[in-house]
Amino acid sequence: MFMSPIRDPIHGYIEVAPHIERLLDTGIVQRLRNIKQLGWTNLVYPGANHTRFEHSLGTYYLASRLAGELSEEERREIEIAALLHDVGHGPYSHDSEDIIEQYTRRRHDDVAFLIESEEIAGILDEYGIKPSAISGHIQGKTKIGQIISGSLDVDRMDYIIRDAYYTGVAYGIVDYEHLLRNIRFYDNNIVLYYRGLKSAESLLMSRFLMYPSVYDHHVGRIAGSMFVHALEAAILNGDVNAFELQQMDDYELNARMRNFNEYSADMIRRLNSRNLFKRALYVGFDSVDKSIVRYTRIQKDIEREIARMAGVEEGYVLVDIPKMPEFRERNTMVLMENGQLKYLEDVSKLVKIMEESYFDDWRMGVYTLPECRDRVARVARAYFNVERVPRQSKLGVA
Amino acid sequence: MFMSPIRDPIHGYIEVAPHIERLLDTGIVQRLRNIKQLGWTNLVYPGANHTRFEHSLGTYYLASRLAGELSEEERREIEIAALLHDVGHGPYSHDSEDIIEQYTRRRHDDVAFLIESEEIAGILDEYGIKPSAISGHIQGKTKIGQIISGSLDVDRMDYIIRDAYYTGVAYGIVDYEHLLRNIRFYDNNIVLYYRGLKSAESLLMSRFLMYPSVYDHHVGRIAGSMFVHALEAAILNGDVNAFELQQMDDYELNARMRNFNEYSADMIRRLNSRNLFKRALYVGFDSVDKSIVRYTRIQKDIEREIARMAGVEEGYVLVDIPKMPEFRERNTMVLMENGQLKYLEDVSKLVKIMEESYFDDWRMGVYTLPECRDRVARVARAYFNVERVPRQSKLGVA
Amino acid sequence: MFMSPIRDPIHGYIEVAPHIERLLDTGIVQRLRNIKQLGWTNLVYPGANHTRFEHSLGTYYLASRLAGELSEEERREIEIAALLHDVGHGPYSHDSEDIIEQYTRRRHDDVAFLIESEEIAGILDEYGIKPSAISGHIQGKTKIGQIISGSLDVDRMDYIIRDAYYTGVAYGIVDYEHLLRNIRFYDNNIVLYYRGLKSAESLLMSRFLMYPSVYDHHVGRIAGSMFVHALEAAILNGDVNAFELQQMDDYELNARMRNFNEYSADMIRRLNSRNLFKRALYVGFDSVDKSIVRYTRIQKDIEREIARMAGVEEGYVLVDIPKMPEFRERNTMVLMENGQLKYLEDVSKLVKIMEESYFDDWRMGVYTLPECRDRVARVARAYFNVERVPRQSKLGVA
Amino acid sequence: MFMSPIRDPIHGYIEVAPHIERLLDTGIVQRLRNIKQLGWTNLVYPGANHTRFEHSLGTYYLASRLAGELSEEERREIEIAALLHDVGHGPYSHDSEDIIEQYTRRRHDDVAFLIESEEIAGILDEYGIKPSAISGHIQGKTKIGQIISGSLDVDRMDYIIRDAYYTGVAYGIVDYEHLLRNIRFYDNNIVLYYRGLKSAESLLMSRFLMYPSVYDHHVGRIAGSMFVHALEAAILNGDVNAFELQQMDDYELNARMRNFNEYSADMIRRLNSRNLFKRALYVGFDSVDKSIVRYTRIQKDIEREIARMAGVEEGYVLVDIPKMPEFRERNTMVLMENGQLKYLEDVSKLVKIMEESYFDDWRMGVYTLPECRDRVARVARAYFNVERVPRQSKLGVA
Repeated sequence: MFMSPIRDPIHGYIEVAPHIERLLDTGIVQRLRNIKQLGWTNLVYPGANHTRFEHSLGTYYLASRLAGELSEEERREIEIAALLHDVGHGPYSHDSEDIIEQYTRRRHDDVAFLIESEEIAGILDEYGIKPSAISGHIQGKTKIGQIISGSLDVDRMDYIIRDAYYTGVAYGIVDYEHLLRNIRFYDNNIVLYYRGLKSAESLLMSRFLMYPSVYDHHVGRIAGSMFVHALEAAILNGDVNAFELQQMDDYELNARMRNFNEYSADMIRRLNSRNLFKRALYVGFDSVDKSIVRYTRIQKDIEREIARMAGVEEGYVLVDIPKMPEFRERNTMVLMENGQLKYLEDVSKLVKIMEESYFDDWRMGVYTLPECRDRVARVARAYFNVERVPRQSKLGVA
Repeated sequence: MFMSPIRDPIHGYIEVAPHIERLLDTGIVQRLRNIKQLGWTNLVYPGANHTRFEHSLGTYYLASRLAGELSEEERREIEIAALLHDVGHGPYSHDSEDIIEQYTRRRHDDVAFLIESEEIAGILDEYGIKPSAISGHIQGKTKIGQIISGSLDVDRMDYIIRDAYYTGVAYGIVDYEHLLRNIRFYDNNIVLYYRGLKSAESLLMSRFLMYPSVYDHHVGRIAGSMFVHALEAAILNGDVNAFELQQMDDYELNARMRNFNEYSADMIRRLNSRNLFKRALYVGFDSVDKSIVRYTRIQKDIEREIARMAGVEEGYVLVDIPKMPEFRERNTMVLMENGQLKYLEDVSKLVKIMEESYFDDWRMGVYTLPECRDRVARVARAYFNVERVPRQSKLGVA
Repeated sequence: MFMSPIRDPIHGYIEVAPHIERLLDTGIVQRLRNIKQLGWTNLVYPGANHTRFEHSLGTYYLASRLAGELSEEERREIEIAALLHDVGHGPYSHDSEDIIEQYTRRRHDDVAFLIESEEIAGILDEYGIKPSAISGHIQGKTKIGQIISGSLDVDRMDYIIRDAYYTGVAYGIVDYEHLLRNIRFYDNNIVLYYRGLKSAESLLMSRFLMYPSVYDHHVGRIAGSMFVHALEAAILNGDVNAFELQQMDDYELNARMRNFNEYSADMIRRLNSRNLFKRALYVGFDSVDKSIVRYTRIQKDIEREIARMAGVEEGYVLVDIPKMPEFRERNTMVLMENGQLKYLEDVSKLVKIMEESYFDDWRMGVYTLPECRDRVARVARAYFNVERVPRQSKLGVA
Repeated sequence: MFMSPIRDPIHGYIEVAPHIERLLDTGIVQRLRNIKQLGWTNLVYPGANHTRFEHSLGTYYLASRLAGELSEEERREIEIAALLHDVGHGPYSHDSEDIIEQYTRRRHDDVAFLIESEEIAGILDEYGIKPSAISGHIQGKTKIGQIISGSLDVDRMDYIIRDAYYTGVAYGIVDYEHLLRNIRFYDNNIVLYYRGLKSAESLLMSRFLMYPSVYDHHVGRIAGSMFVHALEAAILNGDVNAFELQQMDDYELNARMRNFNEYSADMIRRLNSRNLFKRALYVGFDSVDKSIVRYTRIQKDIEREIARMAGVEEGYVLVDIPKMPEFRERNTMVLMENGQLKYLEDVSKLVKIMEESYFDDWRMGVYTLPECRDRVARVARAYFNVERVPRQSKLGVA
């Protein structure tokens, strides 16, 4: 009755019930096979070619491990929600996320339109499952939705371990078996037993360590920034609309963009041949005017202004202002040995400090063509009122 | 002077000299980022999204480990040849290999036209390296070329370990560190020290075990067969020519094929949604007329004939006749403890038996639409004169 | 109600029911903590310090995985038998096995006297389990006993993976998850589903590769041989009797032997400081008179004779004649896809050849003090009529 | 000329030069084969049977990786010092450390008496190496000694990774390859390049996570405490003297202690059969009078007093007051990208907070016989003025 288990390098064999197999075989889920989990990060880590499809499977697997104490009905719902939680992602995952959100006014977890489509809803109906319940869980509007999107959720557990495996960095090794054994869905909350505290801390530390090394690696950010500018130009030029874009896969977008407007085509050509922009300016949180962080909508104006002053063609100076990091984990409820419930940040000094520390690695960047680097650097330093830091090294470090 | 080492999940950090970095940054090599190492195998193993690019890097790394005793000049040549050995692969790697070879009359290692192109040759010239030497090594026309393409070569070492890592099967764990320590390029031959015999046997066994599980998994063969038929139809219809095809990447081909002739478009749509053909017949080597294996050119006629007899549309019955396996490793020279040189197959009974055993897993398949399966099965059994094997299981095994 | 799961580097968390915990806490089982799994092999592989205790836990774990289809009663019995299967081992495991068997006339799996002792039987009685049933399973006198000691058993699965992990050799990586999923205890037999064939082959290959590298490494054999001679001298000298010996642990024997008769004390001093004998002769199966293999009881006479002729003190020439390897796996029943049962050796050419190949690595050794090596070599070659093989190497291989 | 490389599960192959091999083969180093790295921790983690011998080899390996920029002479010295840094450890490593120090007035790194012994000094002399230089490095009296014992040293790198491997906890996975690449011995200091910061943080975090899980696991502390009391009784009773004790191995001590005074013999019998004391009191740093921590010498008096008040035999109430954790890493020098040197704690908020957080896991324990637990608990709570914490759990957590 069951299909063969699916082999996953992270979790071993994943068993799949018939209704899950039916969902797996829809076009909406199969599209995720062609969407890389980490977008353009494979330009830094050549092994990072894994996809949203396997991540979705892994998230489903972890959700089913955690759902043991739910009712049969809730269990099925949360498993399905885990499997489908990423169907709203556009090509290159997070690299297209903001642009799609901006131009469709739809977040990547607003997936009701997909869950309630004939293809998915038809299957759910057969098994007596309400599509709206599923999209509710995915958007975190329900209590059990916390399992996949909460202060300590299976989405994050899966991606940290998986991203570490494929990039080859050694940070993502989490004792998730121990963690799973010490989390319960209890009284409408995800609750961590105190004795599982160290595994939870190890998960958060992994994430903490992976941010600067993987998720915010400067080369990845440059590539992502080039891609975002190419996408926006394509939308503004009418080459593609944002709704259509959201449902493309990496293959189609990459191939089609080669024939979009001149600027977008140039960008994708550069990306495909790893002919990237360079950093002209790269400054930490303490060195920038905080208002910049808040007013990202004026980013375009700044880019234009710097390009003009440096005599560089418009579109060839990019300003990259990362979002402030979130740190939802601090709100995780911990069940103490004496039966009390406390917030994670009140139990673990380590967790408390991590939020602050995220800023240590925050960097604003200004990127441009290699040949324009010096000119743009000079203008940008003046523009942002940043002093020149002599990059001298007594030791001759590269 | 050196770029940052590149992080590889298999070999750890790979150091890259400036001339290698220059070559890495060419379009010819960057294209390999978008070519999956195992073609459509990710339809069976969702983690198998790794690319020819990282395999090329890994092969370069292993070659440099083995090249220690060559002259400086030879060493540089063989490292470059290792890096470039796969630039001739078309999209989806082996899945397009035969079609490209048939219509271009060029094997995937006939890469002189790429190595001698301005983009690559220009760089090689700067460093005083002859492009023709490189393509000679890749095609195995030279003695040191054995390092990357011989009876026991680094190409194979890398792909077995890498493919196992990304598929998640446990077979590919080879003690390659021990093997590298016991291979030398000696007197114009790759020579294995006797004390390294067990590691060599473990490499061959891994390959032996991975064939049926990974490389010849029936679902992968069905997908590959559908893809090959789609490609041939596209070439015959003039949608693409084989020379152009060879230089595409997975992205471009996959996206463009959606707009090729109706049959090819249907096939890629089915592949992208994992809506695959099913096995109507699947028989071992002992059950088929051996002449079939030799006369693969009549395969098209057989397909047409079975389709006609079963009342199925042409193109929707596929006959898949795998090639006979090669087993070059048996010719590896082994240096015995007493100084004699022997052939590996004369030293290891295990190696001797493996060639024969490869046939145990050989299967000819006839594939068709799920809804035509029974009809086609009946016709195909009659056509090939194969008895019906009752697939009954006392134990209720699926 | 359950104790905390026990953390095992091989299987992760092992859950332990209360009756198992009670058995774990007996002196009979705790003794196994102080008995190294691979005896003196840590003189070759410094990491090989793992014990019979953790192996027993691992065997218990695998048995419980396989016992799913047994009755509740049989399941409990086989789990307990797995946990206790090695309690009859003497210090340094296999290294003392033959001597203990010879002088006690009791095999290491004749454990009725321990299972039926008050300490164990008292606990079993409380849970309504018959001690005699347990010892029957351990000795393979029952059908379900095959699970722990049969043609394809969990004892072997555990030790191969575990020994590879602690020695650090890469051969023992077996897809045991896949294997466990494809073995059933059916109709009073261990049965392997055909689709699990490759995992079973991988297990056998691992064992095959580990024999020469680990279990029969020549340095381990020398150490084992010195130890066996020291033990026999101690028994003959009345320092210890064989029944007492069987129930000692490594710690007690090692420490006490330092004060046994002069010869035994010298041997343990040498072993503890890794001051080992050297090979004077080392010849393969084809070079020896087969009758030697059969008449191991005359080994002592041969040793004395060679020592006398070479002018070496008695006890300082050791002859080591390994036993002929067994290969029980070939009798594993395989359930074919058409419902037939076949023997493994009839289904897998690879398995068929492995038995023969075991002899390839068989070596008889003559060991002595480093300073007597040449003299003894000369005499031994003459005695066994073995030609001198010039150990010249054109390549200067050590 | 070189011996075969030694296979290590952590670092792969370790190459050993002739003078190192000579040192390895001394009795002083071979003794470490019989000293478990983590003492009695294998009562908690059954796989933790690894020894000081393999840790010494691993430390040697890492030192040789770091020593690249030293002079040839310094390099040889630091490699030897790394190999020999633990020869002063007594049986069961840290579990006997304090007692030996107390009664010999010698710290475990005061190893001059061993390094300058004939056995070691004789070999060092042959190679022109001064024994006193080696013992100076080991005691951290020299600048280069920091490599093995400093703010960020190879001793710690090796043991964290190794302890994690053998216990099976997932925390010890450190990107040590990256770390090694970013540490230099520069201007008489160990210096960390800023770009290696994350790997250094990951090392510290691993240690941080392993403390409560492994090094300070309450069962391990109970066993260690019983052992320490048994040792002290043996010394006071004249069964063994502390100088002799320091040079024993686990085997000899364990076996001989079975015949020491009645109390020590009872303790080792309990330890060998894992028949351990239980916690009667277990309180955190915030709940105890800080003066206790300072006045550990009055611990004996407290034990006697509580035993008397609870009516328990002397020696069967143990008070365990862990030492305050050290945190030398904060003094590591970090070389910033602009060439400045800063302290690690000024660069990494994470490091800064970790020292404080160590106290979160500090626990004082009072242990006794299971049957006396309640009585002792009552008395101890009163004695230390600690309130009773109801160990109720709403969720029925064990």
